[in-house]
Amino acid sequence: MVYVSRRASFSAAHRLFNPKWNDATNARVFGKCNNPNGHGHNYDVEVTVAGEPSSETGMVIDLKKLEEIIAREVIERVDHKNLNCDVEFMRGVIPTAENLAVAFWRLLDPKVTEGRLHSIRLHESANNVVEYFGDV
Amino acid sequence: MVYVSRRASFSAAHRLFNPKWNDATNARVFGKCNNPNGHGHNYDVEVTVAGEPSSETGMVIDLKKLEEIIAREVIERVDHKNLNCDVEFMRGVIPTAENLAVAFWRLLDPKVTEGRLHSIRLHESANNVVEYFGDV
Amino acid sequence: MVYVSRRASFSAAHRLFNPKWNDATNARVFGKCNNPNGHGHNYDVEVTVAGEPSSETGMVIDLKKLEEIIAREVIERVDHKNLNCDVEFMRGVIPTAENLAVAFWRLLDPKVTEGRLHSIRLHESANNVVEYFGDV
Amino acid sequence: MVYVSRRASFSAAHRLFNPKWNDATNARVFGKCNNPNGHGHNYDVEVTVAGEPSSETGMVIDLKKLEEIIAREVIERVDHKNLNCDVEFMRGVIPTAENLAVAFWRLLDPKVTEGRLHSIRLHESANNVVEYFGDV
Amino acid sequence: MVYVSRRASFSAAHRLFNPKWNDATNARVFGKCNNPNGHGHNYDVEVTVAGEPSSETGMVIDLKKLEEIIAREVIERVDHKNLNCDVEFMRGVIPTAENLAVAFWRLLDPKVTEGRLHSIRLHESANNVVEYFGDV
Amino acid sequence: MVYVSRRASFSAAHRLFNPKWNDATNARVFGKCNNPNGHGHNYDVEVTVAGEPSSETGMVIDLKKLEEIIAREVIERVDHKNLNCDVEFMRGVIPTAENLAVAFWRLLDPKVTEGRLHSIRLHESANNVVEYFGDV
Repeated sequence: MVYVSRRASFSAAHRLFNPKWNDATNARVFGKCNNPNGHGHNYDVEVTVAGEPSSETGMVIDLKKLEEIIAREVIERVDHKNLNCDVEFMRGVIPTAENLAVAFWRLLDPKVTEGRLHSIRLHESANNVVEYFGDV
Repeated sequence: MVYVSRRASFSAAHRLFNPKWNDATNARVFGKCNNPNGHGHNYDVEVTVAGEPSSETGMVIDLKKLEEIIAREVIERVDHKNLNCDVEFMRGVIPTAENLAVAFWRLLDPKVTEGRLHSIRLHESANNVVEYFGDV
Repeated sequence: MVYVSRRASFSAAHRLFNPKWNDATNARVFGKCNNPNGHGHNYDVEVTVAGEPSSETGMVIDLKKLEEIIAREVIERVDHKNLNCDVEFMRGVIPTAENLAVAFWRLLDPKVTEGRLHSIRLHESANNVVEYFGDV
Repeated sequence: MVYVSRRASFSAAHRLFNPKWNDATNARVFGKCNNPNGHGHNYDVEVTVAGEPSSETGMVIDLKKLEEIIAREVIERVDHKNLNCDVEFMRGVIPTAENLAVAFWRLLDPKVTEGRLHSIRLHESANNVVEYFGDV
Repeated sequence: MVYVSRRASFSAAHRLFNPKWNDATNARVFGKCNNPNGHGHNYDVEVTVAGEPSSETGMVIDLKKLEEIIAREVIERVDHKNLNCDVEFMRGVIPTAENLAVAFWRLLDPKVTEGRLHSIRLHESANNVVEYFGDV
Repeated sequence: MVYVSRRASFSAAHRLFNPKWNDATNARVFGKCNNPNGHGHNYDVEVTVAGEPSSETGMVIDLKKLEEIIAREVIERVDHKNLNCDVEFMRGVIPTAENLAVAFWRLLDPKVTEGRLHSIRLHESANNVVEYFGDV
């Protein structure tokens, strides 16, 4: 078993708030991340696929194919977007890094057909990272 | 003359558009940066001060003082903000990295009283950087 | 289960030696890390917490709270300190990166009450890293 | 159990192709990595060893010894080399990052006698990484 | 005057040798960089353009246009290539980082028509960088 | 004119204090950098040499020679040392990053005989950098 990872980047705006709460509760819980007009990040996403390297190609999965899958399924939908308003698959979901990583897993898992998706690692900033390994 | 630099970070949303233009022109000129609901970045700003190290302290400027100046004059005003809506000193200015760097210079220049402000270097993403050395 | 990590930094001096050994043995075993007047590092510590994201907040643990716990329990005790002389919880312990990571675990584990502490990753330099997952 | 990692770097040329295939198939499968005159990378390899820190030294393995093992067993054989032509242990193996990581494991595993080899992590570029944990 | 920079990456093989010298002299002067079958690098190139930000766009040059110019004039010609054999504009030139930076300047200077080309900064590895400011 | 830079690293302890001042003044001026038992850093030093690339070698200066000069003149004298006690050329000098950069210039300038020394850039931490261009 070898684990291969491909990294991609996107820039997006978001705002953390729970629509079931009033403004004061949202401000208390989410702090500056609750700023009404939003803020944003450069995100790095690292997608890891596990598998046996093929004896024909020496590869678990062609990383250019993985790059294309990540671009098509994830990056094109979130890059230079507002994660609260513009992104179909985040409707009704608070756009924390945790929820984004889980959503990216669900988008990518059915598309990774060589090897199997192992993890989604999402850097929201230099100091904040989340990682998701699926519902296991 | 020694040049000392202090780096700080902030996360903000922005949208590039020129209010004098119609939507089609804005979309053509600014492309995905014109997304109506905005997008965002983690910005790194590197502030450089030039001067002679003091024979008493061995320092051009105490970097903790410089850190506090940057925090108070710049970071507190832009971190977790929307640069189009929330930032007084950017009113009426398109929030490109170029215009941000010039604005940061104007905020910081009068506050740097040990040594003199030499440059503002602003990283908007891993691949995009701007630098401003004042109106010289 | 989602794994969230927060990174923090500190700068400290240390010297590796075993007080039960003579100078020659210490010099042979620890090499240049045994320099009598010490040396130092910028350390990066990455603290990972595992848990289910709350359906109310979308978070495993508020990363600002985690940042405060790390600052209070670890960073304030080691930053700009000498790890051999100044740090209560390292008394009688050789301040290798391994022993520091284990000590940080013991400080942080009782304080992480949302999710559970998963790992301590400590970078001593660009090329040296240690990781500890608790006594399991 | 503590996991300690040492990072090292090397620069090498390689070309991906399968000698059992004709040129058209090689070009289709490997794309630009199949360029007849090769291309190259700066590789970073991160070697992780797992073990109990010694009560005498506070170390799992002396990282300077691990550095020397990596230098002697791996770096001297691949640095400033062509991985297709110059490297004995890669003869008959397509020099993908996957196959390199497995080959490095086989070189290093018998030489790590304090603790046990846990993983080989190989960065081929800023965006491509592979990791191997042995044949388990 | 504001200086804007765009970074791009490529991976290439090269070999340093002077065809006017014999093998022994080449080996002595270029050391391991003279390996007959070549070696390679991931290169980062940072292109800086100087100019006044437009009052209409707030930009010195649209960084997406600059990205396209760099891709078309430089990256497509060198990425996944052998710099000694495959690159027209390096024929007869020893492919050191210095000579590459000068060659990239000559390719890019006539194409940068908003602002003016200020510098080419080329990272050959984490520790080696060259910078060229034109023939001034 | 091309500018070539070589980066090297060292780890050292230091303490900022002025022996002409009493403890209270030292503590007020230098803050936590005045900790009596010292603290430390991983330093990165980037040495830049300016010159014309040789038509014979394509190089301003052989970067391996520059690496050796930096290792011999600087790194061996400061790595794993206490900058206050162990370093001859820092006697009587407060070991700020500013003073270190100037001292490194004086050590290196007479030794760089291909091209001429252009600058010393010293990173004391991820956020603090100083640069010195000689007494011009």
